[in-house]
Amino acid sequence: MDGIRVVACDVFGTTVDWYAGVAEQVRELLGDTDAGAFASQWRERYLPSMANVREGRRDWAYLDTLHRESLDELLDRHGLDPDEDTRRRLVRAWHRLPAWPDSVEGLTRLRERHILAALSNGGFALLTNLVKAARLPFDCILSAELARTYKPAPEVYLTAARLLDVAPDEVLMVAAHGWDLDGAREAGLRTAFLERPGEKGPHQAADRGMAADVSVASFTELADLLSPAGAGR
Amino acid sequence: MDGIRVVACDVFGTTVDWYAGVAEQVRELLGDTDAGAFASQWRERYLPSMANVREGRRDWAYLDTLHRESLDELLDRHGLDPDEDTRRRLVRAWHRLPAWPDSVEGLTRLRERHILAALSNGGFALLTNLVKAARLPFDCILSAELARTYKPAPEVYLTAARLLDVAPDEVLMVAAHGWDLDGAREAGLRTAFLERPGEKGPHQAADRGMAADVSVASFTELADLLSPAGAGR
Repeated sequence: MDGIRVVACDVFGTTVDWYAGVAEQVRELLGDTDAGAFASQWRERYLPSMANVREGRRDWAYLDTLHRESLDELLDRHGLDPDEDTRRRLVRAWHRLPAWPDSVEGLTRLRERHILAALSNGGFALLTNLVKAARLPFDCILSAELARTYKPAPEVYLTAARLLDVAPDEVLMVAAHGWDLDGAREAGLRTAFLERPGEKGPHQAADRGMAADVSVASFTELADLLSPAGAGR
Repeated sequence: MDGIRVVACDVFGTTVDWYAGVAEQVRELLGDTDAGAFASQWRERYLPSMANVREGRRDWAYLDTLHRESLDELLDRHGLDPDEDTRRRLVRAWHRLPAWPDSVEGLTRLRERHILAALSNGGFALLTNLVKAARLPFDCILSAELARTYKPAPEVYLTAARLLDVAPDEVLMVAAHGWDLDGAREAGLRTAFLERPGEKGPHQAADRGMAADVSVASFTELADLLSPAGAGR
């Protein structure tokens, strides 16, 4: 792990618990629905919706727009028809999600010796709101929006390195998803798999044992590896 | 000042003291030179160098590149010929500058009720380094680099509003320079003049009494105006 200058962290599932956060807000806004299953089904549409942009089948569209389209489709399938205001508030559920218990402490320590960036498919505004609400101590927000495509397209990772004026292999991408780490590796970044067994809730299996330069179970464990106590802190 | 959601802060001169910071590093690296005058002469080349990009007389170039070109020219004029390493370190002087005494406290208070963004002509990497070193509590870094032109071009202010998903008039631009506030106003932003009488050192006059929606003498005074104690904090 020598020569790492930037630690770039995925957000949904890696840094914050989207499943619990979205399910809770679905429960509040839609009442009786099985909120956990609804959150899972919504998230299942995430990768396919972004692939349409990434692979050029449609123009650039914000994640909020993709979330809204998949929400409308899902509500139809469930025979639900909430009003426009409720739909908007549901899309905004993704703007305010709880941090995993180790995130703030681990990120705070990682920030001591590295540039610490959020690097997510969430839009720049979404990420800024989310990071602020969860009090995550990032040095800067980097969004796929800045490259106008989505991870795992290499442009997203390379735009991040270019904006921070570092070589790709000076960036460590931290993510709970194998597809994200594969994309980062192909773009020349280094990779850390952060295993989050409960990331997708009880309905879907989380990624386990993904290929990466290092694997950890928490941001604090990653900080132990990258910024060991006594090593110049 | 109703309806302000984002406080966007200029950096050089407004949030940090470029004159003292650059002069100190010039003194260390070039020895006998009149470091303050050198810093002033270097900064004098700042607006003209950016105008070449803004007005299309040359392609996009990073602020570091512009700083390097004006440094080389200035060293020639002074009959100085430091080595490549020293020149690089001089350009990096602009990456590490001291905050004004009121900046951290005022920004911390402004952040409580607003999205707080750095919005500068410095590059994204430069700003990230500088903000981190000076421990300025911004929610996000926004650089003119993201619009690939320079303030006061309207694209810079409008890109900031677009990325944060707010209307231009929901952004308050805070700056110590009239030209910056004029650009922000023309783009539809609201404006706060932060008077920094010593901003340019003893060799040049700082901007005084510039036209703006509000005028203050410190970030803490701006926080008093926007986030008065007891108003929902």
